[in-house]
Amino acid sequence: MGFTFQINNDIHFKHDKQLLAKAASYRPKLKHQTINAKSIVELEKNTGLLEDCGVKKVADINELANRKLKRNDKVILDFGDHCVGNFSLKVKSVGSPMDAPLFFKLKFAEMPAELASKSEDYDGWLSKSWIQEEYLHLDTLPAQLELPRRYSFRYVEITVLDTSPKWQVVFEQPTVVTQSAVTADAVTKPRLADPELNRIYQVGVKTLEDCMQNVFEDGPKRDRRLWIGDLRLQALADYATFKNTDLVKRCLYLFGAMPTEDGRIPANVFTQPTETPDDTFLLDYSLFFISILADYEEFNTDQMVLNDLYPIAKKQMDVALKLVNEQGKLQITDDYPVFIDWSNDFDKTTAGQGILIYTLKQFISLAKQMHDSDVDRYISKLTLISEFATKQLFDSKSQLFVSGSNRELNVASQVWMALSHVLDDQSTKQLMVQTVKQLFPIKGIATPYMYHHVTQALFEAGMQKEAIRLMKGYWGKMIQLGADTYWEAFDPDKPDYSPYGSAILNSYCHAWSCTPVYLIDKYLLREGVSYDN
Amino acid sequence: MGFTFQINNDIHFKHDKQLLAKAASYRPKLKHQTINAKSIVELEKNTGLLEDCGVKKVADINELANRKLKRNDKVILDFGDHCVGNFSLKVKSVGSPMDAPLFFKLKFAEMPAELASKSEDYDGWLSKSWIQEEYLHLDTLPAQLELPRRYSFRYVEITVLDTSPKWQVVFEQPTVVTQSAVTADAVTKPRLADPELNRIYQVGVKTLEDCMQNVFEDGPKRDRRLWIGDLRLQALADYATFKNTDLVKRCLYLFGAMPTEDGRIPANVFTQPTETPDDTFLLDYSLFFISILADYEEFNTDQMVLNDLYPIAKKQMDVALKLVNEQGKLQITDDYPVFIDWSNDFDKTTAGQGILIYTLKQFISLAKQMHDSDVDRYISKLTLISEFATKQLFDSKSQLFVSGSNRELNVASQVWMALSHVLDDQSTKQLMVQTVKQLFPIKGIATPYMYHHVTQALFEAGMQKEAIRLMKGYWGKMIQLGADTYWEAFDPDKPDYSPYGSAILNSYCHAWSCTPVYLIDKYLLREGVSYDN
Repeated sequence: MGFTFQINNDIHFKHDKQLLAKAASYRPKLKHQTINAKSIVELEKNTGLLEDCGVKKVADINELANRKLKRNDKVILDFGDHCVGNFSLKVKSVGSPMDAPLFFKLKFAEMPAELASKSEDYDGWLSKSWIQEEYLHLDTLPAQLELPRRYSFRYVEITVLDTSPKWQVVFEQPTVVTQSAVTADAVTKPRLADPELNRIYQVGVKTLEDCMQNVFEDGPKRDRRLWIGDLRLQALADYATFKNTDLVKRCLYLFGAMPTEDGRIPANVFTQPTETPDDTFLLDYSLFFISILADYEEFNTDQMVLNDLYPIAKKQMDVALKLVNEQGKLQITDDYPVFIDWSNDFDKTTAGQGILIYTLKQFISLAKQMHDSDVDRYISKLTLISEFATKQLFDSKSQLFVSGSNRELNVASQVWMALSHVLDDQSTKQLMVQTVKQLFPIKGIATPYMYHHVTQALFEAGMQKEAIRLMKGYWGKMIQLGADTYWEAFDPDKPDYSPYGSAILNSYCHAWSCTPVYLIDKYLLREGVSYDN
Repeated sequence: MGFTFQINNDIHFKHDKQLLAKAASYRPKLKHQTINAKSIVELEKNTGLLEDCGVKKVADINELANRKLKRNDKVILDFGDHCVGNFSLKVKSVGSPMDAPLFFKLKFAEMPAELASKSEDYDGWLSKSWIQEEYLHLDTLPAQLELPRRYSFRYVEITVLDTSPKWQVVFEQPTVVTQSAVTADAVTKPRLADPELNRIYQVGVKTLEDCMQNVFEDGPKRDRRLWIGDLRLQALADYATFKNTDLVKRCLYLFGAMPTEDGRIPANVFTQPTETPDDTFLLDYSLFFISILADYEEFNTDQMVLNDLYPIAKKQMDVALKLVNEQGKLQITDDYPVFIDWSNDFDKTTAGQGILIYTLKQFISLAKQMHDSDVDRYISKLTLISEFATKQLFDSKSQLFVSGSNRELNVASQVWMALSHVLDDQSTKQLMVQTVKQLFPIKGIATPYMYHHVTQALFEAGMQKEAIRLMKGYWGKMIQLGADTYWEAFDPDKPDYSPYGSAILNSYCHAWSCTPVYLIDKYLLREGVSYDN
C-alpha cells in the first residue's frame, strides 16, 4: 500500500488490551545478518530515467580505503543485493591534523534511479522525509559511525561536503546489519524448470523477506507500516514460503484490537511509538480482515484465533451489508470508499461488489466453522448480492460485467467477479477470455496489487498460459529493469512512472508485489501444471 | 586566531609524557548551567548585512508550544545571550497519526546575520563544516531530542523540511546546558563610572568565559582550539578576572610537551581525539610561549612550572636568535613567518623585530629567575637587536620606525616597538603621538588582536585618552552592532567584512578580542587613573 489520503480526526477507537497483549506475544525476534559492501560503482548514465539507470563497477570494495576524499568528492557503494537494516562505517582522516569537523552526506538507494534524482528537486505532496538521506557532522576522527535509523537499500552514495584544505577523509568497512522476522534459508526453494519463472519466484521471496519485520510492512523504505491490503497478500505469500504464522497472527490481532467504536477496522495501523490505528478507512480493506482470517484458518485451523477474531470479522461484514440495498447492490459511500487500485480513473462499484461476494463467501465458511446460527441470513444475502451481479451487472452483449451508471467496462470488475466465482467455472473462463480479448493489453494500471488480482483471475479461470505471460511481462519486466525486489508501482508502458513524481520517493521493495511466490506455488507447483510455455 | 594556512606533513614532534600528564592533571571540570530560550523572534531585515540584521521579538517563548508547524514553516528562538553548550528540545506530533518521519533543520547562530546568510551560497575555502546546521530525521514522536554536538549561539532557527499533509510538529522546551571552565559569578565585577566602558568590560568577561573550555579555545563556534597567540591574551585577561591559573598551566604544558624534534613549538595544538600538535609554525607565536610563561610567573610565581618549561622557552629564543644576523636584524624566513596580524598587506619585519625584543626582555627575567648562567649572552643579544632597531629602523624624519626594504611606515611596527619599550618612555610616548598623528585613523586592520596591541601601546605610552577612544570606537562599536561577545574579525569601516566571504563562517565569540578586561584592569583600575573622558 502507499498513498490514500484521508483525515478523520474525530473518530474514536477501541483498544482491546487482551487482543493487544496477544499481538505483543507474537512479536518476532528479528534475525540479523552482517553484510559488507561488495564494490564501488558509478552510474552508467545520469538521465534520471529508470531504463537508463544502471551502474557499472569501477573498483573492488577494498579500493575504498585508498580513496582520500575531499570537498565534493563522491563514491557509490554497492552491497550487491537489497538490504534492510542498520548501516555502519569507519571514518578516519589523513593529512594534517583534522582542523575542522567532517561534513558529509549519505544517500541510501534501492535503485540507481534514486541516486540520479536530486532530492532538492522533489516537491510533491508525499513527505520529503522519506528520502533516505542524512547530513552528518563528525567533530572527531577516527570514528566508528553507527547510524541509528533503519534504511532499505542496495546502494549508498557518500558525498563529502567538506573536510578542510589540510586533510582528507577515508571511509572503510561499510557494513549493514540486516533485519527481518525471517531468513531466506528457512524457505525450501522450489526447482522451476523455467529460469525466468525461477528468478521471478526468487525475487518475490526476497521482497517478502525484506518486508517481514515487526509487522508485515508494506515497504521497508517508505510507509513502513501494516496495511490490510498488503497483509492479505503477504500472508498468502508467507504460507507458500516462510510459513511464519506468528507474524500473521500478530497482525490480525493488531487490527482486531483497534476498530473504531462503531466497529470498523482501519485500513492500517502503526506500532511505533505505540499501537495506533490510522484514521484511514477503506471498505474493501475492512472486508479483507475476514479474508485474512479465513485464509489463515484454511492454512492452519486455529480455534483460539477464530474465537478471538470472528466477532470482529462479523462486524465488518455487517457494516458492509448495511450498505447493500434491497436489490442486492452494494452502495459505496464517499466516507468509506473502496480502494481496488490506486487509479481513480475507472468506476469501482462492480469491483467492490465482487469483493463483497468474495469475502462474504469466506465469511460464510468461517460462520459455519463457528456454528454461527446467523449463517443462513448471510447465505441469503450472498444469493441476493450475487444475483444482482449476474442479473444487473453482467452485460450479455459484451459478455463482461459493467460498472457504474455509464456501464463502464474495466478490467477490475471482471477480475473481482472472476475471483469471487459468482459465475460457474465455464462462465468464469469465458469472462476472462473476453477480458483478455476486449480489455487487454492492460492500460492505466500501475500497481502490482492490481496486476496480482488480474493474474490470479486468469489462473482461477484456468488460463495458465495467459497468467504466466502476464507474470513474465510484468514482474519479469521489473527484473529486466534491475529489480532485486519488486516495486510498489510499475507500469510496463511507462517504466519511469512514479505516483509521487520522482523515483526518489518510490518504494522499490513493496509487499503487495511479492505474490508471484504465492501464484507459482498455488497454480503451478501444487497443481502440478506444466508451465513450460 | 583563525586562519593561517600551512601544510608541513614531514615534521616530527616530541610527545613528552610527563608534561602531557601534567597538562591532563589541570584539565578543568566543566561547569554547566541550564538555560531556556527566552522568546520567539524574527529578522528585522533580511539583507545579510550585519548592520541591518537585528531581530524583533514576536512572541513569548511560551507561545512555541501553540505553534503547529508543517513543511517550510520556520521559527527563530532567542536565548537572550550568547551560549556555548548542548541543545535539547521536546518534539511532538499533532493531528493524524505520524505517517512519515519528521525532517527538520536546526541552524545555530551567534548573530542574526548568520541566519540571513544562506549556507548553500557559501563557497569559500574555509570548511563548510563549521556552519552550525543540522538536518535531522525523527522516525518516532514524541521525542526528547538531545543533540550530541556542542554549539555556540544565541539564536536557533528551526525549519520544518517536512511532516506530512496529515500531521504537524510542535516543539517545546528548547534548552541549552552551557559549559565553561569558569562561571561569571566567580568574577568580582569592577564598578566603572563610565557605562560604555562598563559594558565593554562585561562583554569581554562573557567572551572570555565562553572561550574557556577544556583549553583556552580561540572561538567556541569555529576553530575551537588552542592557539598560542590567543592563549597569551586570554591568560592576561584571565589574571584580571577569573584567575583560573590551572587552565593556563594546562595550556602551557600542552605546548611545552609537543615541540618539533628540532624544538619549535607549533602555533596551535588539538586535544581531540588526543593531544596533537598542528603543523603550522609562526615565529612570533613560538616566542610568545616565553611571554605566556613570564606573564604567568609574574602573576603567580611558580617554580615547578618554571623548572619544567624554562628549557622549552629557552629553545624558542635560541631558535629565533639563530635568525638574527651580526647587525642584530631578525631575518624572517618563509617557512617560519611572523603572524602579527591577518593582513598580509604590510611589511612585518620591524613588528617581528619588536616582538623579539619584547619577548627577549621577558626571557631574560625568566633566565634570571632560573639563575641561568647564560643570561649575559641574552642580555648582549638584546643590546644588539635593540640597537639595530633604534639605529637602523628608526627614521628620524618621520620619527617612526620603518619596515622592510621599502622603508614602509605602518602601525604594527610602531606598536610593537612601543610595547617592547626599546625607546625610553618619553620617546615611546612621542612614537605613539606620531603614530596617531601620521597613521591614524587605522586602515586595513580587521582583527581585535591587532587592535588590542595598538590600544595597549597607547596605554603604555601614557595616552589614556586615545586608548579609551580607540577602545570605545572598536569594541564599543561591536556592542552597538549587537555583540553579546566580541568577534574574531571586525573592521569598523566595513562592519560586514568577513575574512571568509560570509558572516556564516565568522566566529562572533573569539578569545583574542576579550582583552578590554585586561586593559581596563591594568591601565584604568589598577593604576587608579581617571578615565572619565
